[in-house]
Amino acid sequence: MQDRMSLIVFSGTVDKLMAASILATGAAAMEMEVDIFLTTWGLEAFRKGHYLKNTKVSKDFEEYAPIMMEQMMLKKVPSWMENLQGAKEIGNVHIYACSMTMELFGMKLEDLEPIVDDITGVATFVERAKEGRITLFV
Amino acid sequence: MQDRMSLIVFSGTVDKLMAASILATGAAAMEMEVDIFLTTWGLEAFRKGHYLKNTKVSKDFEEYAPIMMEQMMLKKVPSWMENLQGAKEIGNVHIYACSMTMELFGMKLEDLEPIVDDITGVATFVERAKEGRITLFV
Amino acid sequence: MQDRMSLIVFSGTVDKLMAASILATGAAAMEMEVDIFLTTWGLEAFRKGHYLKNTKVSKDFEEYAPIMMEQMMLKKVPSWMENLQGAKEIGNVHIYACSMTMELFGMKLEDLEPIVDDITGVATFVERAKEGRITLFV
Repeated sequence: MQDRMSLIVFSGTVDKLMAASILATGAAAMEMEVDIFLTTWGLEAFRKGHYLKNTKVSKDFEEYAPIMMEQMMLKKVPSWMENLQGAKEIGNVHIYACSMTMELFGMKLEDLEPIVDDITGVATFVERAKEGRITLFV
Repeated sequence: MQDRMSLIVFSGTVDKLMAASILATGAAAMEMEVDIFLTTWGLEAFRKGHYLKNTKVSKDFEEYAPIMMEQMMLKKVPSWMENLQGAKEIGNVHIYACSMTMELFGMKLEDLEPIVDDITGVATFVERAKEGRITLFV
Repeated sequence: MQDRMSLIVFSGTVDKLMAASILATGAAAMEMEVDIFLTTWGLEAFRKGHYLKNTKVSKDFEEYAPIMMEQMMLKKVPSWMENLQGAKEIGNVHIYACSMTMELFGMKLEDLEPIVDDITGVATFVERAKEGRITLFV
């Protein structure tokens, strides 16, 4: 068994990306390996330049979004992208784009933020995840 | 420990059902056993005939839904139901309906698509999931 | 390895809180230890007095909400809060508030329902989760 956290990032709202990035940072800080697999809307969120204008918050809680965004600015909370960059600096964190979604959306690796390491298939991701300790679908 | 992936399918939107079916297919292709536990809106999605008219996509990303649906048609991507049928053909995949939700919604096994194997309780599902390698809530 | 289920409760809709509380109850009934980590909208749902007026259901399925609520009343289904209280009575269940969200929302432990045991950081939660058998993000 490997000391690994595997995160399937399906959602692309800022609140969920923030949660995923904090889990990745926490795991990296504790020297766990972290594998992030971007699929569907989670992959869309890593399209080049997209994260700068992404202010999407889960529609279920959209009435809280303005207060949350304001507090995040006031308290200078780092963005989810900054968290992920930090996690990569301190730990063994890899970010993979789901090959099937890439094909469906007609995307290439160069269309994505440079933080994305590579394209991979679901089978390869699952193969590694099953040897790890924690696997989450966000 | 068993070489098993356990999926709790809570959501009933096409995008999440697609993700769940692809994870199940990937795991089955790698000879993992797959247990799928349908609850709440995930169970509703397996009501007989329902999947044929289900075009629901997560509201958080509904503006992308038409393009995604179009690309899926153009690229002849199999539906989530076809994926699950395929996963059952190649592997050891079982689909269970949550007994508590069945009672709440007043449903019987014959109200569900024939792909659903049986009705089971949450305790039985958890008992098996905890012996497995990956458990996800979708 | 510990016989533990760890639940990250990110969402604060009644349908997801219900699913989380039923999973916690099932695990507690089978003598698994249960750690619940409340973050973002999941933490908001535990603000004192809030759960009594919370009728939020996932927007993706809101058309089913009135029927579900009606059936839950008719069939006298216990609320998610009652489920969690029951789980704590029969088992080893702990509920933790995410320290980062507490700070972001400017909340103190006394602002939360008494069922919440303590405030904790993500690293501590992950440290315990990785020794357990099941970890879910709800």
